[in-house]
Amino acid sequence: MRLSIHALLDYTVHAEADVLLQIEAAPDGPAQNVIEGRMTVSTGSELHPFHAGEGYGRRTWTRGAGHFRADYHATVEVERTPPDIAGLPQHAYHELPPETVPFIWPSRYCQSDRFESFVAKVFGDKMGGDKILAMADWIERQLDYVPGASTAATSAVDTFISRDGICRDYAHLLISFSRAAGIPARMMSAYAWNLQPQDFHAVVEVWLGGSWHIVDPSRLAPVEGLVPIIVGRDATDIAFMTIFGRADLNEQQVTVERID
Amino acid sequence: MRLSIHALLDYTVHAEADVLLQIEAAPDGPAQNVIEGRMTVSTGSELHPFHAGEGYGRRTWTRGAGHFRADYHATVEVERTPPDIAGLPQHAYHELPPETVPFIWPSRYCQSDRFESFVAKVFGDKMGGDKILAMADWIERQLDYVPGASTAATSAVDTFISRDGICRDYAHLLISFSRAAGIPARMMSAYAWNLQPQDFHAVVEVWLGGSWHIVDPSRLAPVEGLVPIIVGRDATDIAFMTIFGRADLNEQQVTVERID
Amino acid sequence: MRLSIHALLDYTVHAEADVLLQIEAAPDGPAQNVIEGRMTVSTGSELHPFHAGEGYGRRTWTRGAGHFRADYHATVEVERTPPDIAGLPQHAYHELPPETVPFIWPSRYCQSDRFESFVAKVFGDKMGGDKILAMADWIERQLDYVPGASTAATSAVDTFISRDGICRDYAHLLISFSRAAGIPARMMSAYAWNLQPQDFHAVVEVWLGGSWHIVDPSRLAPVEGLVPIIVGRDATDIAFMTIFGRADLNEQQVTVERID
Amino acid sequence: MRLSIHALLDYTVHAEADVLLQIEAAPDGPAQNVIEGRMTVSTGSELHPFHAGEGYGRRTWTRGAGHFRADYHATVEVERTPPDIAGLPQHAYHELPPETVPFIWPSRYCQSDRFESFVAKVFGDKMGGDKILAMADWIERQLDYVPGASTAATSAVDTFISRDGICRDYAHLLISFSRAAGIPARMMSAYAWNLQPQDFHAVVEVWLGGSWHIVDPSRLAPVEGLVPIIVGRDATDIAFMTIFGRADLNEQQVTVERID
Repeated sequence: MRLSIHALLDYTVHAEADVLLQIEAAPDGPAQNVIEGRMTVSTGSELHPFHAGEGYGRRTWTRGAGHFRADYHATVEVERTPPDIAGLPQHAYHELPPETVPFIWPSRYCQSDRFESFVAKVFGDKMGGDKILAMADWIERQLDYVPGASTAATSAVDTFISRDGICRDYAHLLISFSRAAGIPARMMSAYAWNLQPQDFHAVVEVWLGGSWHIVDPSRLAPVEGLVPIIVGRDATDIAFMTIFGRADLNEQQVTVERID
Repeated sequence: MRLSIHALLDYTVHAEADVLLQIEAAPDGPAQNVIEGRMTVSTGSELHPFHAGEGYGRRTWTRGAGHFRADYHATVEVERTPPDIAGLPQHAYHELPPETVPFIWPSRYCQSDRFESFVAKVFGDKMGGDKILAMADWIERQLDYVPGASTAATSAVDTFISRDGICRDYAHLLISFSRAAGIPARMMSAYAWNLQPQDFHAVVEVWLGGSWHIVDPSRLAPVEGLVPIIVGRDATDIAFMTIFGRADLNEQQVTVERID
Repeated sequence: MRLSIHALLDYTVHAEADVLLQIEAAPDGPAQNVIEGRMTVSTGSELHPFHAGEGYGRRTWTRGAGHFRADYHATVEVERTPPDIAGLPQHAYHELPPETVPFIWPSRYCQSDRFESFVAKVFGDKMGGDKILAMADWIERQLDYVPGASTAATSAVDTFISRDGICRDYAHLLISFSRAAGIPARMMSAYAWNLQPQDFHAVVEVWLGGSWHIVDPSRLAPVEGLVPIIVGRDATDIAFMTIFGRADLNEQQVTVERID
Repeated sequence: MRLSIHALLDYTVHAEADVLLQIEAAPDGPAQNVIEGRMTVSTGSELHPFHAGEGYGRRTWTRGAGHFRADYHATVEVERTPPDIAGLPQHAYHELPPETVPFIWPSRYCQSDRFESFVAKVFGDKMGGDKILAMADWIERQLDYVPGASTAATSAVDTFISRDGICRDYAHLLISFSRAAGIPARMMSAYAWNLQPQDFHAVVEVWLGGSWHIVDPSRLAPVEGLVPIIVGRDATDIAFMTIFGRADLNEQQVTVERID
């Protein structure tokens, strides 16, 4: 399908500050072709895009001061069939390719080392894609989707206890479980067609049967309509915007429309 | 100086298990030339070395079962002058090169996001290399070197409260402070000439004035005699050995001798 | 001095819920005489007052539904000279009277067990009242008073790291340090004359030289004008109101006026 | 049944230190009659027993230096029928008697505030004794009894994640769940007939239908053969011995024999 995307970030930045934007549809993202993409910032500051390094995605350095507005418009062709990971094998550790190794370790918000006993006990009878599906089912049953229940500091351990959160928290928990089971997992930010209400979305990629597969434990949007932005170890790597200074949100809007 | 290195890891592995070794002097490490290096494992299992990806260093997959012994012998030429970071400038965020960006984020054991107020309050009057030196001094004054005080689960937050630990904990704390101050910092494992008692060592690299500089907050060994093995975000990335299964330690020995 | 106190709590309670109020000037509080005190709730629910048990203070059970408003009016005579704890001795553990023993243990928000090394290192050269004063000075220097920086879940460990908070957080940190040093410490909620802006206040009582002494690490109001409400191990015991159900705040007001 | 009890604690105390012993069968414990009890310490130091204050039990201050050995011998008559809490009602909050109120709050190792969502979700369809039984069943199914898996610093939150521990950890988790459900719960240390291997035991008391009822979530010993020592908010209040100084364990032995 062909999607028209618009993201608007409007902030007041108190003193001139560096800004890192991670809002472009990944030029090298899976199963997508960015036909047209254009980013502008209201301050006219220079934009310094660069490749994200681990996996795919593009980051952009810029600067903001006073009224700062970033606009991103894109047209993206996505050709993705609904993934079916049931039955997919997981790899023995020693067969994992080099680029997947960082994604078996714990990270800031995904303390997979602490979930090993739990994962062995509850999901120990399954392997590979079936194990991931059982984990995603468990997360969907056990968590409530509650906007405002979590903050930027909330980790997988917190969510495991509180049993509520948003897409970010669902993803952190699945990533933690998956790594605890020896399956590389990373976090993807994405635009999502048919997401209600519209916003940046966060899902998971797991390494099974020799490639990465998208899983959305929050089940809020169809995987076929996802437009990957960037991947990383967890939310620390993929935040859509980081302002290195004090700033206040004025407005933030995401629209994703199917045009074909 | 020219150093002769020997590392011996001797374990009993309960069931056949994958093993990740990260004990080779980095072929692409800074200011060193690995003249000769040879790794063998007692089980005769195949060794699959690969580049670590982020920064430098080499990882090796193998397998172990029963009595498992890994031996690494190397001769390395190191030419490193004692670093002097006093006065070195730190970069504005937007000037940081792509490969340094992952090292400004918090990680599993270095929750730099939680130290921002503290760092601004205590070290806010300094910048760049002077700030790093002030942080390293603070850490040296405030922490006691106490083997056994920390575990593999100990994070920078824990060390900040308990005020004791080993080289790993000193490094985690300096990395956390440095990132909280906007200076990219990563963890390096190394062989260390003149370290008493001999063991694998852990130090810090910070990005100042356009390059990485080694800082050892534990001050246990001269930086000139360090032989870098691998770098990563924190201890998760650089553990010298990970056995993915149950195992007991029999013996572990590191020797580093100057031969020229 | 004679103080006229008024506290108003106005909430909307979604379904009928139990309510615990802890807002009366302690009838048995130190150095005060409650000349007149009257509590009313808008719902006309019965009030069941009872003694708090550990130390002093009075709790009241009632029920609320819909618009719930609690009013407390009192006239209290306070005769308290500014405390001077400098030079006061601390007791050996085995000399502590039974009622002080619970206040040497860690509690939910005062994890004193984790601060023992830090306290020994930084305050180890002082004893008794001098030690408490040094701790209070340290806290005043190191913390910033930032309304909104902390939440109901914030503990002394969090405050030690973030270095900001409100009176509750200042008190939790001093209590933790004090217990780590073997000096019984408990938390007191109080009305406070000359507090700007007016609100319920939280301070600390420490056991030195055979009696409890008030210390206000936030230094926001004169100790002579404090009207103790209740004491407990930490914020869990002394919250001014707990509604056991969903409720929204409409208005909350405290006034403390000197009338003599 | 009539039980003969002997507890022996043998330590080396590095410098003269205060010692708090909590090893006597509670003179005022439920359903028991301490026919004879005698405590001696090898150092001949004075013993200062006192009532524990909250609930029942006796604490004793003494001092130790060098080789320190405490011996406790007792004969206790216990008349306790196996408790049956199925069907017992829980009280509305406002009906809770004053002495139970401290046991609905979170404590150092029982962060009940963090388990409210989980408890509502998983046990929300049951009330009172049935709810406690469902919680105890859940804990027994989900946890593995693993000596050495936990330490003195392990809290209910840690156990909920790691899913293993000993009697102390089982008790902390049930207390946390119970308080999160509005049922007062406290921790009891006890001698236990038929416990294998013999040691001090830790169980739970919950307030249902107007009285305290014993529940042993670890199910390691029959409740009829328990000899209560002391109760408190969690492990902080009821440790059998606290030495306020450096000490090494030489030997520790508990024997409980049925003599009638």
